[in-house]
Amino acid sequence: MNDQKDKEKMRILAKDILVKGPQEEVEVKGWVHRIRELGGITFVILRDRSGIIQLVLEGPPDFTVETVIRAVGEAAKNEKAPGGLEVKVREWECISKPIGDLPYQVNGDPSKTGLEALLDHRALSLRNPKIRAIFKVQAVIIEAFADFFRSQDFTEIKTSKLVGSGTEGGTELFEVDYFNRKVYLAQSPQLYKQTLVASGLERVFEIAPAYRAEKHDTPRHLNEYVSMDIEIGFIESEKDLIDLEKGMLTHIFEEIARKNKAELEMYQASVPDPEAVYKSPTIPYEEAVKIASAEAAKSGGGRIFDINPEAERYLCVWSLREHGSDVTFVNEFPRRHRPFYTYPLDAARTMSFDALFRGLEITTGGRRQHDYQALLEALPKFGLKPEHLEGYLSVFKYGCPPHGGFAVGCERLTQKILGLSNVKEASLFPRDRKRVEP
Amino acid sequence: MNDQKDKEKMRILAKDILVKGPQEEVEVKGWVHRIRELGGITFVILRDRSGIIQLVLEGPPDFTVETVIRAVGEAAKNEKAPGGLEVKVREWECISKPIGDLPYQVNGDPSKTGLEALLDHRALSLRNPKIRAIFKVQAVIIEAFADFFRSQDFTEIKTSKLVGSGTEGGTELFEVDYFNRKVYLAQSPQLYKQTLVASGLERVFEIAPAYRAEKHDTPRHLNEYVSMDIEIGFIESEKDLIDLEKGMLTHIFEEIARKNKAELEMYQASVPDPEAVYKSPTIPYEEAVKIASAEAAKSGGGRIFDINPEAERYLCVWSLREHGSDVTFVNEFPRRHRPFYTYPLDAARTMSFDALFRGLEITTGGRRQHDYQALLEALPKFGLKPEHLEGYLSVFKYGCPPHGGFAVGCERLTQKILGLSNVKEASLFPRDRKRVEP
Repeated sequence: MNDQKDKEKMRILAKDILVKGPQEEVEVKGWVHRIRELGGITFVILRDRSGIIQLVLEGPPDFTVETVIRAVGEAAKNEKAPGGLEVKVREWECISKPIGDLPYQVNGDPSKTGLEALLDHRALSLRNPKIRAIFKVQAVIIEAFADFFRSQDFTEIKTSKLVGSGTEGGTELFEVDYFNRKVYLAQSPQLYKQTLVASGLERVFEIAPAYRAEKHDTPRHLNEYVSMDIEIGFIESEKDLIDLEKGMLTHIFEEIARKNKAELEMYQASVPDPEAVYKSPTIPYEEAVKIASAEAAKSGGGRIFDINPEAERYLCVWSLREHGSDVTFVNEFPRRHRPFYTYPLDAARTMSFDALFRGLEITTGGRRQHDYQALLEALPKFGLKPEHLEGYLSVFKYGCPPHGGFAVGCERLTQKILGLSNVKEASLFPRDRKRVEP
Repeated sequence: MNDQKDKEKMRILAKDILVKGPQEEVEVKGWVHRIRELGGITFVILRDRSGIIQLVLEGPPDFTVETVIRAVGEAAKNEKAPGGLEVKVREWECISKPIGDLPYQVNGDPSKTGLEALLDHRALSLRNPKIRAIFKVQAVIIEAFADFFRSQDFTEIKTSKLVGSGTEGGTELFEVDYFNRKVYLAQSPQLYKQTLVASGLERVFEIAPAYRAEKHDTPRHLNEYVSMDIEIGFIESEKDLIDLEKGMLTHIFEEIARKNKAELEMYQASVPDPEAVYKSPTIPYEEAVKIASAEAAKSGGGRIFDINPEAERYLCVWSLREHGSDVTFVNEFPRRHRPFYTYPLDAARTMSFDALFRGLEITTGGRRQHDYQALLEALPKFGLKPEHLEGYLSVFKYGCPPHGGFAVGCERLTQKILGLSNVKEASLFPRDRKRVEP
């Protein structure tokens, strides 16, 4: 055991060689990224989780690209090597060799391989540093989201994804055969996060899968996505939630700027400045429709009647030009556009909002109706019957504070930070109407 | 907006009043936990997310227990009040009143209400500070797990819970109707975490729901649970994984000792010392069976042939007595007890392990077979056919390092830390054969 540990302890990561500089003996392990033979000498680019390092071997290689190897040698300066250092290999061994030909080139430009082929072979496509970069950024988004809400005294929760019925009505739900009865995959933790605010936790967040059985096949839809949800008690209106989201986005962007420099560079991407996030506008729905219409007219687009995906793009163009911000909030959505549980501002409008980021809706949220009688009265207007919502209604029966919350689509945020053209690129194993593998 | 913010900013939490001491004016918001009328004066215990504070009102209350109220007054010393301070209320308002009678008493001893009733009314049962405490501890477990593995250079991943087939065979899977085809809820992220090690991320962790369609109804089973999974490349054996788990458990226990003092006290519970975790024994399977048998014989129990739940309890009794440790590892499980992908130690035994904690298995793990040919050769011995596992096998085709991993059951760990009698108590919204609500 001790011998094994010592052996493993000898291993050094590619990036640490570059940090530590020349050393008499290093052991590296990783995948063969590139091979170049030149006058009896073999130059190998070795790739590990940290980055790449050049190896120099005397004689021909007994491996192909993507072989996993172990090599021991001297780390020495070489101005021509990536990072200015290389390992002059004394001995090496092949740990695992590819069987047959690779279905496509791993070390090239991933944009030359179609998205479906990249998704079919995830164990291969993610070896490309540019593709792996997406998920290094996503991991930081998830960490920063949780950190921010913990700093605001939120409690992390894990709620069931199997529900007896959908809160938003019965459409767009995946059915599960559960011990000979039918249940559904949760579209959101809506009911549960409200339950937990009412239970006295007051402030909760959850990062978990959510499901929409939508038949859409667009670059902005996934049938399974990572929903980053929050809910908070004792708020006055959706404006408190918008403030909270500004704080959250700022923290996420700052963390990405700090931890993902290399990844941003690969995509020639940048995150918004904190100041720009704080000064991002909040536009009431009616005004937002007018602004989007005016933008559409300017650029020769069709008429805008609604905040649809086209309008979202126009609004973001306007917001960047007029306010210097990549983030735009639209609030006061009409009642007809929002679920029954949304808190009314007046007869026509609600205390709700969307957050748009670089042309795409990344958040929907709002204050919720917390008054049991008011909920009962609202139901018929939405064609709903109290007897079908007993579980939901019971949450508001025994003392519930005013509250609200929102959800951020993790893949959409990742997509827009890096400027990816399809949200599926930001999902490790995306699910769409046709794809359930790998 | 600014006015609203200022209003909210006036609110002070119960625990902060106790920290800050006497103040001329404080505003508190929360749930009425207890009411006591005494000679024209009303004493109220107010409960918020932070704790409780005593309020003193002149005259009778216009509210019942569990009403959400706002109150303003002077925070003053009173030795008889919980924490030594109380708020002499000048004005109050009722924000939300319960409708009708509570189905059971919230502010009493929760053990007097049956588990099923507690689960039926989660928005109520979680108001009891002792029940809420379970999930304050669970949130720290989740945070500490993620922290520890991030500190070891692991990347957080989010993988699909909808799979085309089960890696462990077709039994015990929940079927999902996915656009007119059948898919299944993932039993574990096994395939995905191995894929991501092979993709070059090398070290990954995931905290996500997992599903077992087992018909068991025991105090140790859930049909949906939070699986805390890791997978790591370039290991030698399961012993590397046991070392990693010791580090993880130590960090989780230290964080709980630091952050959950009050919660541990409510349950008269404690977490193991780091030293005890590090010196916890690792017992090969055959020897573990003998030890459990000897313990069973001593206490007049039946014969032990296997590491079943009974044997786990005996082993933990032995381990605590002989090694002073609440944690016990059993390794070298026979091949017949482990899935086909487990790495062999020899013809009969595997590089696998379980972790037992206070009588219960909380982890299963092991090194995996990373060699494509060896996997192909192993399949027939398990009655499996390569053509049914093409997706799984493809991961090992193009260069895969030796690797392994494990999964920790979040609810079981929570249960055993607090000494709960049923694992369902450690799930916010547990699912069993009969329960899919709330």
